Amino acid sequence: MAKSYNVAVVGATGIVGEVFLDILEKRPFPLGSLKLLASERSAGRKLRFGEQEIEVEALTPAAFEGCDLAFISATDEISKEYAPIAAKAGAIAIDDSGVWRMDPEVPLVVPEVNAADVEKHKGILAIPNCSTTPVVMTLWPIHQVNRVKRVTAATYQSVSGTGRAAMGELETSTRQAIAGEEVVPSVYPHRVAFNLIPEIGSWKDDDYTSEEWKMVNETRKIMHAPEIRIATTCVRVPVFVSHSAAVHVELENPMSAAEFREVLSKAPGVVVQDDPKSSFYPTPFDAAGKDPVFAGRIRRDLSTENGIVYWVVGDNLRKGAALNALQIAEELIARKLI
Amino acid sequence: MAKSYNVAVVGATGIVGEVFLDILEKRPFPLGSLKLLASERSAGRKLRFGEQEIEVEALTPAAFEGCDLAFISATDEISKEYAPIAAKAGAIAIDDSGVWRMDPEVPLVVPEVNAADVEKHKGILAIPNCSTTPVVMTLWPIHQVNRVKRVTAATYQSVSGTGRAAMGELETSTRQAIAGEEVVPSVYPHRVAFNLIPEIGSWKDDDYTSEEWKMVNETRKIMHAPEIRIATTCVRVPVFVSHSAAVHVELENPMSAAEFREVLSKAPGVVVQDDPKSSFYPTPFDAAGKDPVFAGRIRRDLSTENGIVYWVVGDNLRKGAALNALQIAEELIARKLI
Repeated sequence: MAKSYNVAVVGATGIVGEVFLDILEKRPFPLGSLKLLASERSAGRKLRFGEQEIEVEALTPAAFEGCDLAFISATDEISKEYAPIAAKAGAIAIDDSGVWRMDPEVPLVVPEVNAADVEKHKGILAIPNCSTTPVVMTLWPIHQVNRVKRVTAATYQSVSGTGRAAMGELETSTRQAIAGEEVVPSVYPHRVAFNLIPEIGSWKDDDYTSEEWKMVNETRKIMHAPEIRIATTCVRVPVFVSHSAAVHVELENPMSAAEFREVLSKAPGVVVQDDPKSSFYPTPFDAAGKDPVFAGRIRRDLSTENGIVYWVVGDNLRKGAALNALQIAEELIARKLI
Repeated sequence: MAKSYNVAVVGATGIVGEVFLDILEKRPFPLGSLKLLASERSAGRKLRFGEQEIEVEALTPAAFEGCDLAFISATDEISKEYAPIAAKAGAIAIDDSGVWRMDPEVPLVVPEVNAADVEKHKGILAIPNCSTTPVVMTLWPIHQVNRVKRVTAATYQSVSGTGRAAMGELETSTRQAIAGEEVVPSVYPHRVAFNLIPEIGSWKDDDYTSEEWKMVNETRKIMHAPEIRIATTCVRVPVFVSHSAAVHVELENPMSAAEFREVLSKAPGVVVQDDPKSSFYPTPFDAAGKDPVFAGRIRRDLSTENGIVYWVVGDNLRKGAALNALQIAEELIARKLI
């Protein structure tokens, strides 16, 4: 009989938790037991999983007993405290926070890019930030045939990257704006309805945000390419789901847009949507709820040699979070590391 | 007695026309008569201008008799046909379309950048595309102290750049989306509510859009700098008014973010809003209805030498269109060219 795995989901009532349960139910994952964990406040709520209703339990250090895998998507504080507790209890923690990603002891993994890094885990693995994943998934296959030297990106990030409350704020503030009422933001520093906010995360070195530094550092770590030079501007946009980015990439050698398109069209997890004359290119609304990362608007960069510009869109809750976490677990299973 | 000038506004019922009339009323412009011109369909409508109500007349070749200045903001077809007719009738045409900008006989002017170019006019002058203006206004003062070599930009452009119907489509489709109703776009190729559309204008060489090429060609012409290398991605966002852009600029010599900020803070028509720790930076909602171009998020480009990244926002209907047109007229008057 095939082995099955007991799973704990920390942050089960959050927006990533909800998507995680949906994906887990639909994939052929060898699931044993399923434990849903959340804050004390959410304990006792019942969540549907397939035909079952499962009661949410309060997260405590004892909760991981008997678990093989702990998927954590809550707050940085929860991840910092509980990932080591889960690992100590014998589970492998797969963490969605910003706390563990740059820890040299923690593999930071996008399976289509650096699956083998899972081998080095010591109980905790991390998934990248949701704006890094689509960019790294499209850079990596190119890097295999023509080394990436420099990347600049401007992002267009949806409010679900902030969480469920931010999705509510976008809806509420949009209603208020349309009704001509005053909009008072609470989740964001400015109104997000019909507006843009060029600030995601906290302020770090050189007046870049934490979100902007994440794309720099995580991309280099995942690709094992600390020499790639990267700078980004991360902007929140009034979109519910999917993160988008306009990316300029500079390569070691010349490459035509057709070659670039050809390489991406064969890349795992990437779908090329690139027929401009038919207005066929990725949009966040179309990408929402789908697994792949979508690339389009691929063309030579008019401003430099060996440069390509493209547009990439991915569902930040799926490949940007829940799906990638589950794929890491599948990779661990396939490699008999669990 | 000071001279006054008889003005015709072509496209008076459009969204730029409406903003133009508002600005004209409030500036100390030496206005003689005012003639409002629009399509046959709009003829007979009355528009308020200060204390007056002025009846809209149908645009005909005879309409420019006795006019000193004709401000045209309608369609490319109208501009192509009527700018020469206005000029022949003795008016100076100041045109907002894409038709005349790159004509070597037509000065393309942002007064803060290349005011002296108005001297060369032969009856028609053009204003740049609304996404070019904020970028060129921030590049030019830098270029005076440290030559700009390369520019890449990703834009976040509001629907008012398309016109009044698009503003209606954003509002209607947003209401429909919130109500869970089907959204069927008519102005845009995809729904714009809670979505992004990386296509503005028509498809041109190298799979760039006309909007993307405009920023390349117009920036070079306005700055008299054909050597600057430029590539952009232009994206429509669900915002009503103001265009934004994340801009990477590469300079001939090193320049700190502080120096860059200092130069821009003294540049005419530019306001620096750059105190990240207080979440103080430009946003399109805050910039809407205001005259200046706003710059913020100024920082060194981590990915290259001599590079700066910044964020620029401007009201596309005001400095991006109506205000710039009126400023050109003021420049003609100041130079006694009219």
